[in-house]
Amino acid sequence: MLKNLIWRQSPRVRSLVPRSFTAFYASKVPLTSESYLSLKRNDSFKRLSSDDIEYFRTVLSKQELLGSKEEGDLDPFNEDWMQKYRGQASLVLKPKTVEKVSLILNYCNEEKLAVVPQGGNTDLVGGSVPVFDEIVLSLSNLNKVRSFDPVSGIFKCDAGVILETANDYLVQRDHIFPLDLGAKGSCQIGGVVATNAGGQRLLRYGSLHGNVLGLEVVLPDGTILDSMHSLRKDNTGYDLKQLFIGAEGTIGVVTGVSILTPPKPRAVNVSFLAVKSYEDVQKVFVKAKGELAEILSAFEFMDAKSIELTRDHLKKDDITFPLEDEYPFYILLETSGSNKEHDDAKLEKFLETAMESELVIDGTMAQDETELKNLWHWREMIPESAQCNGGVYKYDVSLPLKDLYSLVEATNARLESEGLIGDESKPVIAAVGYGHIGDGNLHLNLACREYNKTIEKCLEPFIYQFVQSKHGSISAEHGLGFQKKNYIQYTKNEVEINMMKDIKKHYDPYGILNPYKYI
Amino acid sequence: MLKNLIWRQSPRVRSLVPRSFTAFYASKVPLTSESYLSLKRNDSFKRLSSDDIEYFRTVLSKQELLGSKEEGDLDPFNEDWMQKYRGQASLVLKPKTVEKVSLILNYCNEEKLAVVPQGGNTDLVGGSVPVFDEIVLSLSNLNKVRSFDPVSGIFKCDAGVILETANDYLVQRDHIFPLDLGAKGSCQIGGVVATNAGGQRLLRYGSLHGNVLGLEVVLPDGTILDSMHSLRKDNTGYDLKQLFIGAEGTIGVVTGVSILTPPKPRAVNVSFLAVKSYEDVQKVFVKAKGELAEILSAFEFMDAKSIELTRDHLKKDDITFPLEDEYPFYILLETSGSNKEHDDAKLEKFLETAMESELVIDGTMAQDETELKNLWHWREMIPESAQCNGGVYKYDVSLPLKDLYSLVEATNARLESEGLIGDESKPVIAAVGYGHIGDGNLHLNLACREYNKTIEKCLEPFIYQFVQSKHGSISAEHGLGFQKKNYIQYTKNEVEINMMKDIKKHYDPYGILNPYKYI
Repeated sequence: MLKNLIWRQSPRVRSLVPRSFTAFYASKVPLTSESYLSLKRNDSFKRLSSDDIEYFRTVLSKQELLGSKEEGDLDPFNEDWMQKYRGQASLVLKPKTVEKVSLILNYCNEEKLAVVPQGGNTDLVGGSVPVFDEIVLSLSNLNKVRSFDPVSGIFKCDAGVILETANDYLVQRDHIFPLDLGAKGSCQIGGVVATNAGGQRLLRYGSLHGNVLGLEVVLPDGTILDSMHSLRKDNTGYDLKQLFIGAEGTIGVVTGVSILTPPKPRAVNVSFLAVKSYEDVQKVFVKAKGELAEILSAFEFMDAKSIELTRDHLKKDDITFPLEDEYPFYILLETSGSNKEHDDAKLEKFLETAMESELVIDGTMAQDETELKNLWHWREMIPESAQCNGGVYKYDVSLPLKDLYSLVEATNARLESEGLIGDESKPVIAAVGYGHIGDGNLHLNLACREYNKTIEKCLEPFIYQFVQSKHGSISAEHGLGFQKKNYIQYTKNEVEINMMKDIKKHYDPYGILNPYKYI
Repeated sequence: MLKNLIWRQSPRVRSLVPRSFTAFYASKVPLTSESYLSLKRNDSFKRLSSDDIEYFRTVLSKQELLGSKEEGDLDPFNEDWMQKYRGQASLVLKPKTVEKVSLILNYCNEEKLAVVPQGGNTDLVGGSVPVFDEIVLSLSNLNKVRSFDPVSGIFKCDAGVILETANDYLVQRDHIFPLDLGAKGSCQIGGVVATNAGGQRLLRYGSLHGNVLGLEVVLPDGTILDSMHSLRKDNTGYDLKQLFIGAEGTIGVVTGVSILTPPKPRAVNVSFLAVKSYEDVQKVFVKAKGELAEILSAFEFMDAKSIELTRDHLKKDDITFPLEDEYPFYILLETSGSNKEHDDAKLEKFLETAMESELVIDGTMAQDETELKNLWHWREMIPESAQCNGGVYKYDVSLPLKDLYSLVEATNARLESEGLIGDESKPVIAAVGYGHIGDGNLHLNLACREYNKTIEKCLEPFIYQFVQSKHGSISAEHGLGFQKKNYIQYTKNEVEINMMKDIKKHYDPYGILNPYKYI
């Protein structure tokens, strides 16, 4: 289904998110307002008038405003990557300066015009597209690197800089961005921060709450909060920036980011391993944490079914699977260090003992950069492979390690008993599990032939209840957005939810920022 | 002056903060209200009545309340470690449960009784002692480890657990606390989090904003916010806990902490190096960041004068200085890794080339655990050595690396020109500089023979202005407390300050928590 899309090469592997995917399916995505009939437009929001557009035209240049067919196709701004949600924005604003963002928000706040801030629109929970007629505020024209200090590693940029562009810029300066994810070719730094994205490097470099040193944020009333600090340590008052990391654009629009970046590792090793049970996945992880310690930079797991889907999907590209046989579980293990010889020695010893004790039953190690990219390819292509036969229901949860895979088993059992999974007569092809073991983060994907309400009812709130029973999180790294707004109580208690509602009301009293979502 | 104090041994070095220091100087510390005559008690706060005490006696047991001489000496709760501040609390509450903390705060909020939350009282900016007659709410009776999971490394404990106790507990389980500081023998985990303490391990393990996974906090109205999550990733709503990390107990009292702890390194190396200029300190740091990369765990620098003071102070203990000569600057460099052989090889190569190129002109490497502790001793004893001749003015600032030491030089020049520094006829002995180069964090200490207003006027706002001119922070890790409340504008702008005042007012409308401080 996605085979005609235009891809672009990323340094590690092809980007998972297409650059241009407009014409292809424009008419196929149902309007969110029609899929969710019980949801009503909030009538306290004004409907966009010609006067409003007139005002925006006085503030913005032609390249900064899309309001008619002649000015550009609005579908890419209204629809999400998973093709589950479609809004009805008739105006997209793409300001080139922070001051213009401020003027826009100030006007919208005064006039009660609802706004959806949008970065690369690679959100997986419907958080970055309008639900009704909200104006889209795209950050893509704010796309300059501001500064980089090679001594401290502190990097400053506009919100609209694409993650891959930032990383390429840093790699040329012997550093890397402390975060990496499949959508790197499209997602923007501002969106990454606003959604507190996780990804493959979190295990090694920690979360954005630790790495972001400063932000520039425009508040709903147009106030510019300039906190673009470049200090690793600063204990002068409440750490305001933290409020906006992961707030999904509901209380302010991130326009600039200051972040600490680590030096580029001098040696990177990747191995792809097979084990016979989920229990052994955990054992290999504990062993790796102990023996590879400071050089362990990724520990990803994949179940048999997720690799099976990927093999089917990649068949057309004639890409050979790295192992000869099939196994119940696979592990992708990456090390990054400063001394190739030392890293190789540690990894070899680790693998030797892991195979001797039959923890690891098969495996391969990348010998060069191409092989390294190929091994990562098998992990990074799973999301697309799960999506390419019609659609995918994605659940991104945190669970205690010991309970992590039991959710996949329980979901499969439930789909089975409801008769929803199986051959072509059934809507669901498979429920597969993969993810970042090192962070306790499972991606449960339901590859399906179509989106339908019966599947959704079978899965929700079932999955959220399961996660709650294990004290997990119903959203590890994807956020709440539209999809999970009504399920937060499965992870957060009443006091927490009330405090959050209070924060939203306090900073955005008219609720103009990213409405119908989050909290 | 401090020589009669009772010290206790810590795993690395003697604790810098005495356990019991009551009788010794009780009468010597002037009342804060008398030192700062222009500061007036806020009369919206009720004065403690016998009815109030009666109420607290119904809630608390005898061991949980000190309200009279028979019940205990209140001096240690009223006075700070530096002997600069003394409050007049006549009531100290030491609840043993979170529910009791809640009852206390709810009552104080209703009755407008001001409260100072207090951990180990090792604060360096007067933040943990009363200014007037505030009630002291000590967390020291909330001192249980709650849980530890060896697979994930997640540790949960009460706020009153002492840092060293927590670290010892973890070391026995092959992990360490991700933070270490001189006051470890006295400071409490809750206080560490509430002040967003930094310390020596920040370079390697990052800040508490990244490591803390959950908090339990009692809000000013007594509401218990239970966010004791144990998930490395959780994107379900605003990250509420972040608000309380570094809030210095002004909007809530931290009662429980959930934190990610790293595995205990299998190999630790420490070397003590001499270089000929501050420029070379920076060069060695850049070299270490590149070559030691993932195993570099501390990079501390000390100037000649700070070591001179320490040599004088340690003379009585007959401790030999590790180098034969004196040099302009010293570096303490620590590596922590998983493989002794590899770490040794990296460090040896690093030192060899650093000495060949004459960057490092002298140095020594610890050969065993005792030598390792001794080398750290020379760094960790500086604060006490700077304080032991009468007093110390401490400035803890963040600066861009290249400008970091120029503050020490500028301060010395200023003291010189004002005729305040020199032999026994002058109040100041020396202005010395040391600190965490890896974090851009300078500790500027003025060893003095007495505290006096002339010195203070010479230093403030001079130092803050200097820091502002370099876009630094006037408080890197010590916080604002009482000392820096009125200087925040040197680091934060008006929008930031207004947002902070708004947060304080929103969460603590009567201002009962830690008044006269912070914001």
